[in-house]
Amino acid sequence: MGYGEFVQGKAVQLGREIVRMTTAAGSGHPSSALSIIHAVVVLMYDLMRWDPADPWHAGSDRLVLSEGHAVPAIYAAYADLGGAVGRTRAEARPLSTADLTRLREVDSPLDGHPNPAEGFPFFDAATGSLGQGLSVAAGLAIGARLGGLDRRIYVILGDGESREGQVWEAMDMIAERGLTHVVAIFNCNGQGQADYVSPQQSPESIAAKAEAFGWQSTLIDGHDPQALKGALTRIGDRPSAIVAKTQKGWGCQILQDKSNHGKPVPAEKMTEALSQLDATLARLGASSAAGAGPSITMPTPVQPPRSGAIKPIAFEKAMGEAGLAAALAKGKLATRRAYGAALLALGRADPRIVALDGDVRNSTFSEMLGEACPDRFVECKIAEQNMVSVAVGLSAAGYIPFVSTFAKFVSRAYDQIEMAQITRANVKITGSHSGVSLAADGPSQMSLHDVAYFRSAGEADDGRGRPVCVSFHPSDAVAAYHCTRLMAEHPGMCYMRTHRPDVPLLYKLDERFEVGGSHVLAEGKSLAVVSAGYMVHVCKEAVERLRADGVACTLIDAYSFPLKIEPIFRAAAACGGRILCVEDNYAGGLAGAVAEAAAQQGGVRVDAMTCRRIPKSAKTTDDIMTYVGLSSNQIAERIRRILH
Amino acid sequence: MGYGEFVQGKAVQLGREIVRMTTAAGSGHPSSALSIIHAVVVLMYDLMRWDPADPWHAGSDRLVLSEGHAVPAIYAAYADLGGAVGRTRAEARPLSTADLTRLREVDSPLDGHPNPAEGFPFFDAATGSLGQGLSVAAGLAIGARLGGLDRRIYVILGDGESREGQVWEAMDMIAERGLTHVVAIFNCNGQGQADYVSPQQSPESIAAKAEAFGWQSTLIDGHDPQALKGALTRIGDRPSAIVAKTQKGWGCQILQDKSNHGKPVPAEKMTEALSQLDATLARLGASSAAGAGPSITMPTPVQPPRSGAIKPIAFEKAMGEAGLAAALAKGKLATRRAYGAALLALGRADPRIVALDGDVRNSTFSEMLGEACPDRFVECKIAEQNMVSVAVGLSAAGYIPFVSTFAKFVSRAYDQIEMAQITRANVKITGSHSGVSLAADGPSQMSLHDVAYFRSAGEADDGRGRPVCVSFHPSDAVAAYHCTRLMAEHPGMCYMRTHRPDVPLLYKLDERFEVGGSHVLAEGKSLAVVSAGYMVHVCKEAVERLRADGVACTLIDAYSFPLKIEPIFRAAAACGGRILCVEDNYAGGLAGAVAEAAAQQGGVRVDAMTCRRIPKSAKTTDDIMTYVGLSSNQIAERIRRILH
Repeated sequence: MGYGEFVQGKAVQLGREIVRMTTAAGSGHPSSALSIIHAVVVLMYDLMRWDPADPWHAGSDRLVLSEGHAVPAIYAAYADLGGAVGRTRAEARPLSTADLTRLREVDSPLDGHPNPAEGFPFFDAATGSLGQGLSVAAGLAIGARLGGLDRRIYVILGDGESREGQVWEAMDMIAERGLTHVVAIFNCNGQGQADYVSPQQSPESIAAKAEAFGWQSTLIDGHDPQALKGALTRIGDRPSAIVAKTQKGWGCQILQDKSNHGKPVPAEKMTEALSQLDATLARLGASSAAGAGPSITMPTPVQPPRSGAIKPIAFEKAMGEAGLAAALAKGKLATRRAYGAALLALGRADPRIVALDGDVRNSTFSEMLGEACPDRFVECKIAEQNMVSVAVGLSAAGYIPFVSTFAKFVSRAYDQIEMAQITRANVKITGSHSGVSLAADGPSQMSLHDVAYFRSAGEADDGRGRPVCVSFHPSDAVAAYHCTRLMAEHPGMCYMRTHRPDVPLLYKLDERFEVGGSHVLAEGKSLAVVSAGYMVHVCKEAVERLRADGVACTLIDAYSFPLKIEPIFRAAAACGGRILCVEDNYAGGLAGAVAEAAAQQGGVRVDAMTCRRIPKSAKTTDDIMTYVGLSSNQIAERIRRILH
Repeated sequence: MGYGEFVQGKAVQLGREIVRMTTAAGSGHPSSALSIIHAVVVLMYDLMRWDPADPWHAGSDRLVLSEGHAVPAIYAAYADLGGAVGRTRAEARPLSTADLTRLREVDSPLDGHPNPAEGFPFFDAATGSLGQGLSVAAGLAIGARLGGLDRRIYVILGDGESREGQVWEAMDMIAERGLTHVVAIFNCNGQGQADYVSPQQSPESIAAKAEAFGWQSTLIDGHDPQALKGALTRIGDRPSAIVAKTQKGWGCQILQDKSNHGKPVPAEKMTEALSQLDATLARLGASSAAGAGPSITMPTPVQPPRSGAIKPIAFEKAMGEAGLAAALAKGKLATRRAYGAALLALGRADPRIVALDGDVRNSTFSEMLGEACPDRFVECKIAEQNMVSVAVGLSAAGYIPFVSTFAKFVSRAYDQIEMAQITRANVKITGSHSGVSLAADGPSQMSLHDVAYFRSAGEADDGRGRPVCVSFHPSDAVAAYHCTRLMAEHPGMCYMRTHRPDVPLLYKLDERFEVGGSHVLAEGKSLAVVSAGYMVHVCKEAVERLRADGVACTLIDAYSFPLKIEPIFRAAAACGGRILCVEDNYAGGLAGAVAEAAAQQGGVRVDAMTCRRIPKSAKTTDDIMTYVGLSSNQIAERIRRILH
């Protein structure tokens, strides 16, 4: 039996499963799945070097399905090959064709879109929010290069999807770094959800764009097995973009109308649909008994990725090695600078640590690691969405990626961050220049929603008994250093918020910090002031001024979410159960967390001072604090009013 | 005096101001500003048809400075021309050169980055978070075409900035729509913040990419006045990309090193810097007395944009006209469908209403307006960042843009949304398929952070006495209809969250709704259940089940932020001050708002049920609600436990 006949036979065999499973699920995208079926067969049954029994294998080729809604094609092939499913190796079992009818059920590993965390380890990342897969592939490829591994990373993405700018951010990065082991397959079926794709996303346009971005592009018929195999095995000195003209609903007329996006075949038309697929096969002169076909090449054995704890380094030693001994001696240091020093120390201590930055490494201070270990520094240029998804790929490759940019620009990638959360990727994100203390540069560079955003998911569980996201908001260099260490140690997503200004040290150098922790910095009986980050210093000024007037407040630095509330309530109880939360961001952050706990428990009253107006530029931090109502005078005044 | 001599003379004259004002401010980006100075002079003194005394003029050409940090160049020219500053026409006054030294001061209209809302009406949008300006220009151009206006829209963007994928989303849209009155000037000074730009962003690479995206690209020396004028006046049948090779710190060696991004000249080097600029002028053989030069062409008078209230249409009539009479008679309708009907009615009633969608118009139901008024429907394809910034441009052109896509995909554009908030743009955003009720498609299509995110800014003031953002979360078709109307009427950003499932009507057809409002749907004495959106229906089931067991709860639909809390606390007081908030999103949303108010006021206890784990696919809404702990049984059980 010829190669073409094998692939066509498999395409129809799997096509029948695609139609059946989506009808059984009552939802899904059979027409998209049929458009990629030949590429899936050529890759999964022939070209990819992988082990269906061990999809976790660190040396295997990978397939990233960026066009996540087409996933039934993969599920059908995977079941046919008996690929292993399960959240862990311990619970792994082979997927069977019978399992396919449980697509999208609440206890099935076959989620509606690729979702490795629910037990489908063939995938490295959750996809389905479009345009992110090529970036994940870039991260996997950078990881492979770091580890000296010969892995090919195949990506299937849609023509409509390639309207997403992130696709072109990834195209830039892959070309710039010469990551020729990434192969992109643009699935040009010509149809989006609501309409045909734009002429801007025609196969010819995509091919021309790919060339302009430094790729080698090859236009082929995406249903021609030999053409696919030929194009997919050609590796040149530029990354390869296969622009495959395909048909949505290939082989099954019922699914070919443009109104059929995301619609399964109605149960009463199932027989007709399956007959159409069979007739397609007959027309191609192939047989439905697909036969043995090529055998899958197993991946080369590789060292398992390193695991285990990161050896901690003492703060003072790390600061010295970062050239910050003099600054430390002066007792004043920006949290962002201490972050850089911590990243350097961690990176030197553990080869899994990789830093990514978006052209602001001299502001975030990720450059400290970049200069010491240039091979583990990924300059992503001004393209934050790509940067976060690259980090997801690096995490899947066993690395611990630290993403740094201004906190404001982190928000460009919030959807990518949520996809990383769904993936349960081990990604660390540090947003610098957060809050209003940045002053002069104005609101386009400040982050004001970030505390609320990251806390929101932090209160939910990731299904492994851990928060979806842990956040840190250090107030001084000691805290920033230890919070960075905690980020590296915590297995899961973390976010840290650093500030621009230099601030005095508040902590002794060996102070202890923990996830969800807080520290009492001053004790009083009048009121407990709870703050974080830069505002701790402003609150400290207010508290000290009031103390001179005989009003003694407790001051608490609540530097991490999800916040352990009991220590704070105990401290508040000593102050008559009165709390004032102070933050340099919009509502719903720290004050929200404290208030939610207080309102549930009762007996504690919580006032809040947050940023209550859109900031603007101001020459000094004091000016902008006064403008948004958060100066130490205004805080002291508010405390006096509360106590009256 | 020749044209070239005039432009060079002005460039140096303004260059001196750029150096002076940034040194006075102690921060800013003089080197970037000097790299665009010739383009600024050619545009603002010659090619642009505009009136410095009336920058609000609806018919004038516009300049979008996407590379916002280079703004001192514009400020210098604007002061020289006596352009009007002020938040409103009533408070307008001409900017003087003396004003420039107050750059970035807290009470100056000269913000660190372009910020029209602080009194610099020459700009249409706040920029400074990179890559967004070309999209704003596309929106302005679409608005001009809708209004039949002959306006040119010039955009200056950086080479490093053009790594942002959003730039290419905008390139696609502008080419697709043949918006040839947009002219893009790529300022290729070769330097980013941390390093030189990538070869992927070389002038030649950008020019090749622009061609592949369907633009006409022209490579020029960006400091050559005649070349600039020639390229900027040539209009072909494709949009024009001027790729201008420039020098960062043009004319002033002190500012030309790559470590100089964002650094003013130190005060002690000011004399040297100014001498360097003068020497540059001498070298060019031009005079610093720039002379009269060309005179600025005033814009053609145009009708002022329409203003005033939108005539309301009755719900039932609107539903009938949308072809939903039968669905209405059955008493069951998805909120997203009622949104579509409302959009249609509003669009028919007012020509300012424009709908934008991202290839899901048949899911969000924005297609209803699209089919009735195709000229006011902008299909943005799968590119959400561009879509939001296009809406900002449309808002600046006097339109009321409604952006629709899945709520999950709205989060791809959160930074663009924040820039719209800073702009105080009148943009409306509707996120459909929100929360977990979407079920089968899984978490890549659900939005879980959105309530916390939009509420966060909603508690802050936009400086005009209005919330930065108003949110709506309707529970039935009547509410969705009226909330859409409120969005259109409210002058400022609004966000609405709709759901996929069909739900029964809860309200009488002429019920009244308001910003921040809530409605009591059932009264009891045991506990007040506060919810919104789809969860109101699930709570209603729970409340009805408990009522059968003799436990009478109050049920409140809190459908809008910022939430007026007093009616809720009054209702809660009748229930012994006990509240349970129920939401299908992560924490920090409705429960956060109620708890913050309760914790401040005291006397009310607030429990919360939110989505406390990452969801997955499930075949039914009941399945997924049970999975995340939000089924009606689980709610009833929780109420029983609270009451014990």
